[in-house]
Amino acid sequence: MSEGTAKKEKLFVIKIGGNVIDDDQQLSKFLKTFASINERKILVHGGGKIATTLGDKLGIKSNYINGRRITDDETISLVTMVYGGLINKKIVAALQSFKCNSFGVTGADGNLIPAMKRPVKEIDFGWVGDVVENNKHANWNLFLDNGLTPVVAPLSHDGMGNMLNINADTIASAIGVQLSEKYEVCLIYCFEKNGVLKNIEDENSVIKNIDRKNFEELVKENIVNEGMIPKIENALNAIDKGVKKIVIGKAEDLIANTSENTKGTTFYK
Amino acid sequence: MSEGTAKKEKLFVIKIGGNVIDDDQQLSKFLKTFASINERKILVHGGGKIATTLGDKLGIKSNYINGRRITDDETISLVTMVYGGLINKKIVAALQSFKCNSFGVTGADGNLIPAMKRPVKEIDFGWVGDVVENNKHANWNLFLDNGLTPVVAPLSHDGMGNMLNINADTIASAIGVQLSEKYEVCLIYCFEKNGVLKNIEDENSVIKNIDRKNFEELVKENIVNEGMIPKIENALNAIDKGVKKIVIGKAEDLIANTSENTKGTTFYK
Repeated sequence: MSEGTAKKEKLFVIKIGGNVIDDDQQLSKFLKTFASINERKILVHGGGKIATTLGDKLGIKSNYINGRRITDDETISLVTMVYGGLINKKIVAALQSFKCNSFGVTGADGNLIPAMKRPVKEIDFGWVGDVVENNKHANWNLFLDNGLTPVVAPLSHDGMGNMLNINADTIASAIGVQLSEKYEVCLIYCFEKNGVLKNIEDENSVIKNIDRKNFEELVKENIVNEGMIPKIENALNAIDKGVKKIVIGKAEDLIANTSENTKGTTFYK
Repeated sequence: MSEGTAKKEKLFVIKIGGNVIDDDQQLSKFLKTFASINERKILVHGGGKIATTLGDKLGIKSNYINGRRITDDETISLVTMVYGGLINKKIVAALQSFKCNSFGVTGADGNLIPAMKRPVKEIDFGWVGDVVENNKHANWNLFLDNGLTPVVAPLSHDGMGNMLNINADTIASAIGVQLSEKYEVCLIYCFEKNGVLKNIEDENSVIKNIDRKNFEELVKENIVNEGMIPKIENALNAIDKGVKKIVIGKAEDLIANTSENTKGTTFYK
């Protein structure tokens, strides 16, 4: 069988957000489930309210523009501590206790996720990074080929000695794209809803499938709301760039969403 | 040539303490020098005053007994943030800028340094760990065999989901011992003095060599002071357990201390 036709191994890239991270019990339950996934897997975590709460205590104000934190000198130190230290290692220690040999990383470690400081246009986002696309994935394989599960904090560096703050959804899809040449990547975004909903009030109104065509209709008919649009665009872009399948769903439905019978919203090419 | 007689590859395990970490300019200079070492290397860092300063701001008191921080729930979160996040990633980003492809780790990551909570006897140290000795070093080789330099924060975990605070000198010697079966390990402790001094007031009074025999004499004659004794005992123990050579010296003398003509105090078996 030539390499071109060989079936790729499966890889799950799974992202959890603040709603899970902020609740110790929910986080522990989620991580136990995550640990039980047998296939190769990578966990990407956001930051939750912990950085904001700690920043408040330290007198560091959190400023957001268009959903992105403005990251000044004090804030990059804060998020490096909280995302790269506190949350990342809390997750690693918990996964180790569930016999999942995990490894906490940022994009700076081993230069796993090359990034650059976002150029200043109308808004100066400060130490916010954009992922530099590349096809090198040798360093991920150190983990994936040796039974180690990477746990990724939403941070990287600029190659000039500075850490950068990067949106966790973006990190997850960048890793998915980066590794899709070698693996059949399934990207799962865990959040607080059952999936993308037709009616935000009705948890049973999950839109089963989204592709570029019905997405345009959903936007035109004003069915998906403003907050979801960048999430969906991010997903559709990752599909265009090689990710096999994306699911947006509830953290509690993780196992179902790794199966063929997904409960959340599924994106295919 | 049989494996038994094959010359082992050299590995430097280098520890920097608070005096270097607390000074941005000194740290940058040190890391540039560290990056220039061609042999395999591991950097272990302490915490410096940053954790104490931040703890003060957050109203977390630092308590020490016998030179060890008492680590309550708030303190383990604090040091996990500061050691595992802020300082570790600052060093990694700086080393990347000096073209040293480094990788920040704690002992929890990949279970690199198995540890256990220190049993409560007279003193309850809280979340303080003791390293569990073992000969598994497969996960260090993922880095060392692939051109990656580990940067180690003085933290590990108990296997039950809790992070542990571990003395950085102890971490450095434990890693040295752990890897001495495979490598010819040279352990270098960088601190603020030229070496172990005969006369604490005289930087030119470096004791060139210490072994178990003259150490006992130095203690008896009251030449080495109280603070140095655990450092020296730690070094002699590591030598007994297989580390080839240990140097205690000034951070600025790093290159000299990696050579045959060490400027600091050298320990041989």
